[in-house]
Amino acid sequence: MEQFVQWVPLVGAVGLVLAFLIYFNLKKLNAGTPRMQEIADQIHVGAMAFLKREYVVLFFFVVIVGALLAAFLNPQTALAFLSGAVCSILAGFFGMQAATKANVRTAEAARSEGQGKALLTAFDGGAVMGVSVASLGLIGVGLFYIFYGNPAQASIINGFAMGASSIALFARVGGGIYTKAADVGADLVGKVEAGIPEDDPRNPGVIADNVGDNVGDVAGMGADIFESYVGSIVATIAIGATLLPEGLTLLKATPEVGDESIKSILMALPLILAAVGLAASFVGIASMRVLKHFSPAAALRYSTFVAAGIFLLASLWIVRSYDVSNNVFWAIFFGAIVGIAIGLITEYYTSGPPVKRIGIASKTGAATNIIHGLAVGLESAALPVIAICFAIYISNDVAGLYGIGIAAVGMLATVGITMSVDAYGPIADNAGGISEMSGLGPDVRKITDSLDSLGNTTAAIGKGFAIGSAALTALALFAAFSQAVDASIAVRLKEMQAAAMELPAQWKRYAMLLAEGEAPLQIVVTNPSVVIGLFIGGVLPFYIAALTMTSVGRAAGKMVDEIRRQFREIPGLLEGKEGVRPDAARCVDISTTAALKEMILPGISAVVAPVFVGFLLGPAALGGMLAGATVTGVLLALMMANAGGAWDNAKKAIEKGEVAGEKKGSDAHKAAVVGDTVGDPFKDTSGPSMNILIKLMSVVSLVIAPLLMR
Amino acid sequence: MEQFVQWVPLVGAVGLVLAFLIYFNLKKLNAGTPRMQEIADQIHVGAMAFLKREYVVLFFFVVIVGALLAAFLNPQTALAFLSGAVCSILAGFFGMQAATKANVRTAEAARSEGQGKALLTAFDGGAVMGVSVASLGLIGVGLFYIFYGNPAQASIINGFAMGASSIALFARVGGGIYTKAADVGADLVGKVEAGIPEDDPRNPGVIADNVGDNVGDVAGMGADIFESYVGSIVATIAIGATLLPEGLTLLKATPEVGDESIKSILMALPLILAAVGLAASFVGIASMRVLKHFSPAAALRYSTFVAAGIFLLASLWIVRSYDVSNNVFWAIFFGAIVGIAIGLITEYYTSGPPVKRIGIASKTGAATNIIHGLAVGLESAALPVIAICFAIYISNDVAGLYGIGIAAVGMLATVGITMSVDAYGPIADNAGGISEMSGLGPDVRKITDSLDSLGNTTAAIGKGFAIGSAALTALALFAAFSQAVDASIAVRLKEMQAAAMELPAQWKRYAMLLAEGEAPLQIVVTNPSVVIGLFIGGVLPFYIAALTMTSVGRAAGKMVDEIRRQFREIPGLLEGKEGVRPDAARCVDISTTAALKEMILPGISAVVAPVFVGFLLGPAALGGMLAGATVTGVLLALMMANAGGAWDNAKKAIEKGEVAGEKKGSDAHKAAVVGDTVGDPFKDTSGPSMNILIKLMSVVSLVIAPLLMR
Repeated sequence: MEQFVQWVPLVGAVGLVLAFLIYFNLKKLNAGTPRMQEIADQIHVGAMAFLKREYVVLFFFVVIVGALLAAFLNPQTALAFLSGAVCSILAGFFGMQAATKANVRTAEAARSEGQGKALLTAFDGGAVMGVSVASLGLIGVGLFYIFYGNPAQASIINGFAMGASSIALFARVGGGIYTKAADVGADLVGKVEAGIPEDDPRNPGVIADNVGDNVGDVAGMGADIFESYVGSIVATIAIGATLLPEGLTLLKATPEVGDESIKSILMALPLILAAVGLAASFVGIASMRVLKHFSPAAALRYSTFVAAGIFLLASLWIVRSYDVSNNVFWAIFFGAIVGIAIGLITEYYTSGPPVKRIGIASKTGAATNIIHGLAVGLESAALPVIAICFAIYISNDVAGLYGIGIAAVGMLATVGITMSVDAYGPIADNAGGISEMSGLGPDVRKITDSLDSLGNTTAAIGKGFAIGSAALTALALFAAFSQAVDASIAVRLKEMQAAAMELPAQWKRYAMLLAEGEAPLQIVVTNPSVVIGLFIGGVLPFYIAALTMTSVGRAAGKMVDEIRRQFREIPGLLEGKEGVRPDAARCVDISTTAALKEMILPGISAVVAPVFVGFLLGPAALGGMLAGATVTGVLLALMMANAGGAWDNAKKAIEKGEVAGEKKGSDAHKAAVVGDTVGDPFKDTSGPSMNILIKLMSVVSLVIAPLLMR
Repeated sequence: MEQFVQWVPLVGAVGLVLAFLIYFNLKKLNAGTPRMQEIADQIHVGAMAFLKREYVVLFFFVVIVGALLAAFLNPQTALAFLSGAVCSILAGFFGMQAATKANVRTAEAARSEGQGKALLTAFDGGAVMGVSVASLGLIGVGLFYIFYGNPAQASIINGFAMGASSIALFARVGGGIYTKAADVGADLVGKVEAGIPEDDPRNPGVIADNVGDNVGDVAGMGADIFESYVGSIVATIAIGATLLPEGLTLLKATPEVGDESIKSILMALPLILAAVGLAASFVGIASMRVLKHFSPAAALRYSTFVAAGIFLLASLWIVRSYDVSNNVFWAIFFGAIVGIAIGLITEYYTSGPPVKRIGIASKTGAATNIIHGLAVGLESAALPVIAICFAIYISNDVAGLYGIGIAAVGMLATVGITMSVDAYGPIADNAGGISEMSGLGPDVRKITDSLDSLGNTTAAIGKGFAIGSAALTALALFAAFSQAVDASIAVRLKEMQAAAMELPAQWKRYAMLLAEGEAPLQIVVTNPSVVIGLFIGGVLPFYIAALTMTSVGRAAGKMVDEIRRQFREIPGLLEGKEGVRPDAARCVDISTTAALKEMILPGISAVVAPVFVGFLLGPAALGGMLAGATVTGVLLALMMANAGGAWDNAKKAIEKGEVAGEKKGSDAHKAAVVGDTVGDPFKDTSGPSMNILIKLMSVVSLVIAPLLMR
């Protein structure tokens, strides 16, 4: 087993090479008419400009935090942190490069070769992101594992996850603010005030809106999933490294295996599973060449099932052929199943009967549309949470805390394909925008519309999956955190006893608990400082949600002013005079500046809060805070993502004539547009920020854990 | 001390007599013109009809639950449960009687005697409710304390709190659905479709709307506060009864006091403080006779301060003159202060700068109005939660878990006056409605409008206070629950040891922890079943909020249909033809039926959930569930109450011309009306239901605690 784990970075490297091959194949495709290329260029330049400016801001943050880690912990952790940050940035960069090439080629494929080829082009664009995420994760964690993959040094690898998380927060929040400021701003002036269609080339905000799809839904989502992927692997390694003998016994297939050898197997297992998951994802991606002849929805779904099936079979074989108990396989199995279940529940709430309900409620106006949408969102949190509880219960029952970690790995191992399907959505959306702006006509638009509409469903499912995996990852990180504190208590206690120091009362208690083989850190809910932690943790997602929603509102306001100004001051623009073009670059700049400015406060809050609570109120309060933040963060994320998705589709249902007596432009439709606009920051800014927030706080706590008991 | 506690029921009885005196004085006042009396009669009849039908539904619930308690616990607990339910019902009944007499007399006082007298009349109407709540609480808990106020039997008193809580949930949820179904329905057809003013006599839903103010804001709020009041006292008695010797030592003024004697003092203290608080409230109520010459806002505020000041001085004297440590006073002091602080924070968010922000956001339409309103609501949870954490920290630091209980008592002891101020609001609102419907002219309407607008502020402050006190009460009940489980583990263990039974592993652990003087029930957050409890508890408030919001939407839809039908089918109604009256009784009946039907599911869920989790997953998971529900319940309650209040006042700010360039009827005003309508179920149905939910689940857990370890 330990031999194989040495090859994991190589698997990652092979994956990266394949991602490049997909990319170069994609680039060779026809990029369409000059007008199409011009528009695609504007989107590409805007997206890359945002990334560059974002990286400058992040550079300072990463260097400062890295220096602090080097000073207070050790240089190796700082190096891991920097590597995690760089890998996350690279994944985002590769994904965006591919997405901004694939969009126009998808439009061209729809124009000249039909739906099958267009689907495949958009999917391949997404696959570059999906494969890059998995490959960079394997290379990064794999390399650090080769150097530090032993129980004494494994905590260094945590730095890698923290690096990935830090970038993810800024990418998600910044990207979310960017995309929704552009979207809401362009819609409010273009669709509502000026009465011109979506993606109309006269609208100065349309390019920014299309850039936003890439910045938010490709780079932001990629960073989010990369963080979960890395976080689940790192947490499971950390849990394995600090497992006590009783825990190890539970996980052995036969009693004869030695504790040290099972421990090294358990630590290596998440990486090996992830490598196998990447290979399975390739098979899924390749199967799209055959599956493209099915309906697009079926093709995407089957390719995911193919990968998941292969992964589960392979993981059963791996677990059985080493000395690991079958129970561990069941944790993996139920992790993967629950991930799929949450996706299906999300699909129900964002395109099933609840959407109809919102559509009908729109008949009595915007207020009832909003009330019913919020109610659907609130209600939609229940089933996914029960599914998560089910995963926790089963995986803990069969394999203890290690089971929770490995279940998260099972859910995320085939990220190569799930992320491909996810990134397909914004590419299809962009392709539609480019078709409209370059006037490719209704036939082409019909193909891109159908691909785009499918993209909305995959995006909703992807969001559910992102939340579910974030929840399990956060819990695994939380378990790792408490074990890390326990370990550092044990170390410090030995030091104190060796120095024959008089133990304070608290430390006498720790000594007693350790002597009895119990965890010394008891995060007991009846302890008032834990209750305070729970409340502070619980309110943080509310606070971050408020910040990000206000940011979108503010940035959208600036966008509205600029678009109004251009319509007013550029002669002939609104009338569509030949050769008159809007100043799209100004709008791109407004979104970029606003997003970078507004991402700072939420980002800093999330990093500072655990440090502050941990050192001021102690590790038990910090544990309470993580638990509180995870609970309300998951609930708000589900509520916001699903309410947003349901509002969006309720509007679309009215447009398609699925709500009796209503159509585009009717009063009910106008009411539904209000809901859709409210849902925009819900589902694409504030909601997704929650995933990162809970993981980032957990991973920061895990990294600072050794310092808390000094 | 123990002598004095015998007199507590008598203090309550005196209070009740004074409440009757206020009521009879009120009834003697002039009830105005025949038309006014006719309208007031309709409101009175409608309100009483609702109460009667509600009581029939509750009768079955109370009898069934009482029988279950008698069968599984003991007949005394069942009796306490029935008494708590009856006292809660009586408090609601008295309050509604007074409120539906005071409304028309307030209108008449405004017409014939001016603002000062009108203020006093509305306030006296509220005072009947306030004094009844406190008096019935003292009589009920006081009597049970005389019989069972010893450590061995004190758990019987918990039944009283459970009875109060059960009624409260149904009263709050039913009342909340009633009032908002009527309000939203009447507004949607009357104001929006038909374009007639609020409270116009032609609108068939207006009587139901005015009945709703009484049913929801008087009876519902009264039951909520009664529950907190009783719950905080009962929880503190329970904590005192089960305190271990170390806890007792902390609370003695001098070490010489015996454990048993300090225990009985600590158990009696919450009742004595509540009795003193009622006396202080009387002084506050009486001081209104002098204070009415100030501005109404100042008068209401000062009367509250007078009562709070007297109460704090008296409680300092009580604590010092018995053998209780000064620390206990500080817990009382900070409890009272934090209650006031939360009220002030609420006032900031519902009438300060955030309201302006929402008003300005309305200029770009309903969507931005909603986005900013939600952001304000989400943000507004932060400071109150920090204040609650501060109260927990200080009170626990000075006096342990007992401190948390007694802080809640300190916050609630002067409920006689806070509830009076609170119930004043809906009476003033009703007085405005009656003036409009009976055409008393603009001068009278100006007085009632100013009293009504003040009522909105006091209602918002009252809601903040209700949430803060619910949070502390729930935490105190939670502490009492965990101590009760500990106590029953100790009892059961003794039985098992006496029978020389072989102890299961779990019970060996309990024995070890008890031997070390530790609590055997360890609700540890790293225990997966506690995590599952946290998640299930966390999602319950989301689920109940979804249920209640959907209920309001559904019931309002029925109301809309009926009002439209009447406008269509009753000739001359909409034109205002002389002698043509709408069929108000039909609308009252629709609201009543809908409210009673829709309150069942949320009510049953809240009672059943803790029983289900407790017996299926065990007491640790149940503890996790209570903690999770308290955190998200408090957060949602704050968010919903404050967002709702802010939307309401943003609309009013535009109407008053406080948002530059906008006025009643402008597009921004229409957008603000959407926000106001969304806010209605937020602040008056779903938000307030959270308070009860968290208290009810805690008290049900406390009552079933002895059964969980059998």
